[in-house]
Amino acid sequence: MDNPVCRLTGAEFPLFAFSHCRDVVAAVSKAGGFGVLGATRFSPDQLEEELAWIDAHVEGAPYGVDVIVPETIDPRVAAMADNAARAAAIDPRYAEFAADLLAQYGIDANRTVAPLRERMGITPENGMALMEVAFRHPIRLIANALGIAPPEMIAEGKRRGVAVAALVGAKEHALRQAEAGVDIIVAQGGEAGGHCGEVSTLVLIPEVVRALGKAGYDTPVLAAGGIMTGGQMAAMMAAGAQGAWTGSVWLATPESEASEAFRQKMVAARSRDTVRSRSRTGKPARQLRTAWHEAWDGETGPGTLPMPLMGMISEPAFARIERAAEAGNAQARDLVSYFVGQGVGLVEDVRPARAVVQAFREEFVEAAMRLAGSLG
Amino acid sequence: MDNPVCRLTGAEFPLFAFSHCRDVVAAVSKAGGFGVLGATRFSPDQLEEELAWIDAHVEGAPYGVDVIVPETIDPRVAAMADNAARAAAIDPRYAEFAADLLAQYGIDANRTVAPLRERMGITPENGMALMEVAFRHPIRLIANALGIAPPEMIAEGKRRGVAVAALVGAKEHALRQAEAGVDIIVAQGGEAGGHCGEVSTLVLIPEVVRALGKAGYDTPVLAAGGIMTGGQMAAMMAAGAQGAWTGSVWLATPESEASEAFRQKMVAARSRDTVRSRSRTGKPARQLRTAWHEAWDGETGPGTLPMPLMGMISEPAFARIERAAEAGNAQARDLVSYFVGQGVGLVEDVRPARAVVQAFREEFVEAAMRLAGSLG
Repeated sequence: MDNPVCRLTGAEFPLFAFSHCRDVVAAVSKAGGFGVLGATRFSPDQLEEELAWIDAHVEGAPYGVDVIVPETIDPRVAAMADNAARAAAIDPRYAEFAADLLAQYGIDANRTVAPLRERMGITPENGMALMEVAFRHPIRLIANALGIAPPEMIAEGKRRGVAVAALVGAKEHALRQAEAGVDIIVAQGGEAGGHCGEVSTLVLIPEVVRALGKAGYDTPVLAAGGIMTGGQMAAMMAAGAQGAWTGSVWLATPESEASEAFRQKMVAARSRDTVRSRSRTGKPARQLRTAWHEAWDGETGPGTLPMPLMGMISEPAFARIERAAEAGNAQARDLVSYFVGQGVGLVEDVRPARAVVQAFREEFVEAAMRLAGSLG
Repeated sequence: MDNPVCRLTGAEFPLFAFSHCRDVVAAVSKAGGFGVLGATRFSPDQLEEELAWIDAHVEGAPYGVDVIVPETIDPRVAAMADNAARAAAIDPRYAEFAADLLAQYGIDANRTVAPLRERMGITPENGMALMEVAFRHPIRLIANALGIAPPEMIAEGKRRGVAVAALVGAKEHALRQAEAGVDIIVAQGGEAGGHCGEVSTLVLIPEVVRALGKAGYDTPVLAAGGIMTGGQMAAMMAAGAQGAWTGSVWLATPESEASEAFRQKMVAARSRDTVRSRSRTGKPARQLRTAWHEAWDGETGPGTLPMPLMGMISEPAFARIERAAEAGNAQARDLVSYFVGQGVGLVEDVRPARAVVQAFREEFVEAAMRLAGSLG
């Protein structure tokens, strides 16, 4: 396929696969799609290692990196210097609430949940550090979420010929990103897994494409949110997108970082089984709904914490949930959750990433032919 | 165009236009689309009059009627014999809350809001009475929402060769409808105006199409929710739908029942300006967000009432809001609202219904060609 997005990124088929797992990134890029490594979970040293692995395995196919440099910081958090200061600032009742909830499901009944201190959180300084690592590798795209891409990212992208992409959930944000000089807008609907807005992909894509055009920008748009099949990708390209940005579908591959327990839950889940909740990262993010979300979002809980504090409580708790589930605690399986979009209702089995790309290609052609055929 | 939906209904172009206004219905059908009159607001006598008018003006083009026969009734309401009994059962503080809210916006400061007593509400008996009127006219489609179409509707549709359609917001509901013998499934995403579920149109369409196919049903699916352009209609047909079911877009026509004040708000609104709220009908329905919704959905209000009680409070209040806005009360304009989907963000002007059909046709062809062209 040949369109501006393909030319900007080197993608043969404009199916962008966001994954935290290097194996998915390499497999998708080698199959003609475009893998994008989500870097936020890694330290700079870890990211260096992951990207070196991809460079050695991707056979020269183009790939990208996604970092999160949040544009705004909750004022409650801004003055805290580092994760140790942040951990110290968290009222102990949050950790107690998490520990009590886990205990109700038979997980580590006599242990508290200590807030994460050592690992990277979603903060501007961490995002910038990861960006610097990414630019040392032959990436073809760098993406940013949670606000305007920082000027350093845009300048460095232009200098190196690396396309800069930005995720947005509203028309106004797309216009601000285009004005800032971003090369590709990823317009993500409210059905998406992870951080998302409220406007659906089907409405957002034509709205963003039209708004950019009217403002005189030719910035191409990728459609994100709910896309699990080549038919949906074709649909969004009929509506004006130049490709698809996907995430959840790759969790149902054996290569992904998702646990086997979570993959089984994906196959079983209906599209109605997700929830947009602040209870994992502190910002609204769509995920598989469990009693965790009901407890934190309910009226008897302590409420949620701002980013990144909420993650400092939730991530150690979810790590314990996963360990307990893996060890055979059936109750713990009930709590297993992860970021996933409404498209989870379309997942029927776990398939290798390469097979997913192939299915997208076939479904895409089928959908385009079906639509053309309807013209008679 | 020729597909099963076109053959079932006689539509030339499978663009279904739901409207409470007979002028829209006739204009769309005459332009090659398919108008569907929303009958719920009418008494049986009024509906008879509306349909006679359509018969006299539609020039033989096919049209349909949409009734609401709710499958389940809130147990708090089930025992009440009629609207007078229902009105008597509403705690006076609901009417007081509505009157206070209106007074804050300079509307009828010294008057209470008397619950509606005389008009039809959304109840099974009212829905059945309207259905009987509809079948006395040369309709080509009868649609039902809020649950399984009643057996009488399906039997009478089959006897008369009238296609029976049912609106659903979830895969499981689509399967139940197909099993009940419905001819056309209207799968409506959570971005839709009016009563809606939570799963987005882009996810729901392939999910419903696939589920019906796997269960051995060949029931065609219309896509509803967020569709305001022919590009989106084409997108959903690429994704497996056989046509589009639309509503909000017709409110921005001069023929529609919407007030001028509301039409102006539609043109100004962004896709993020809607809310899914129980505060108008008692069931979750998407509408333009105003202080009305914040007040009723907020924590200081009395909560919302079940259907049809909520509408017995809200409809007289909204009628006063409209009258005050029309009389020049600028504050009242702030409260003007109506059922509308997220697609409101795509409305740029008020155009005749015939011109909207024509735009859909052109955009549809353009989108299908664009997608086919991407195959190279």
